[in-house]
Amino acid sequence: MAAYDPDNIFAKILKGEVPCHKLYEDADTLAFLDIMPRTEGHTLVITKESAPDLFGISPQGLGKLMAVVQALAPKIKTAVGADGVLIQQFNGAAAGQTVFHLHVHILPIKDGVPLRPQETGMAEPDALAMTAEKIRASL
Amino acid sequence: MAAYDPDNIFAKILKGEVPCHKLYEDADTLAFLDIMPRTEGHTLVITKESAPDLFGISPQGLGKLMAVVQALAPKIKTAVGADGVLIQQFNGAAAGQTVFHLHVHILPIKDGVPLRPQETGMAEPDALAMTAEKIRASL
Repeated sequence: MAAYDPDNIFAKILKGEVPCHKLYEDADTLAFLDIMPRTEGHTLVITKESAPDLFGISPQGLGKLMAVVQALAPKIKTAVGADGVLIQQFNGAAAGQTVFHLHVHILPIKDGVPLRPQETGMAEPDALAMTAEKIRASL
Repeated sequence: MAAYDPDNIFAKILKGEVPCHKLYEDADTLAFLDIMPRTEGHTLVITKESAPDLFGISPQGLGKLMAVVQALAPKIKTAVGADGVLIQQFNGAAAGQTVFHLHVHILPIKDGVPLRPQETGMAEPDALAMTAEKIRASL
């Protein structure tokens, strides 16, 4: 398990020090749009535990996190008109992890439309705000 | 949510009608090696619920499934000498799902070694048996 850096970008979002396009929040979990979306509606669901990766969260916390993923994914899929949903979760730089706060990717997929590569660029804030509004309206 | 076909290949594995390289089993969950591995130690963790995808399992069942993923992933990573672990779960053909029984992929990743594409070929049974033995010895 990696060490947990309390100043990582997602910790700052949890503390309210950095803004996000929030979709959902409860006592244990926060969901917001990825600012470098690989597809429209690309969402991150994060735990409020100080867990760098899958190996650092309590099984109970993981269950709560995944219940939120399960509840949000079909609604996000419908909101953006996707045909399928890919769930991804990276552990370690070798596996593509860049922020060391446990997060689950919800990636709505449309037939025949490939994902953009990871972290190819920031989305326009207005486009993200519109997507967030569309998804929040469906929740 | 897709309809559940009780004769899908993973249902047959659960019924014992088709063999697998089993790594772990409990009352709710079965874990075994993917026979078309994208990397050494590529493991599938499946629920015993008749759930075609993430949208068809109970939240409680999902929590149990993910607790097994969490317990197995670091041990598989160590057993095959990987540097990171990618967790993937596909919902719908558009997202790459080919077997419509909910399954979570555990993909141990080595630095600089790309994953093979999905379903590019069957592994040699002897190689799978050796990998399974190595992982089981670490559990």
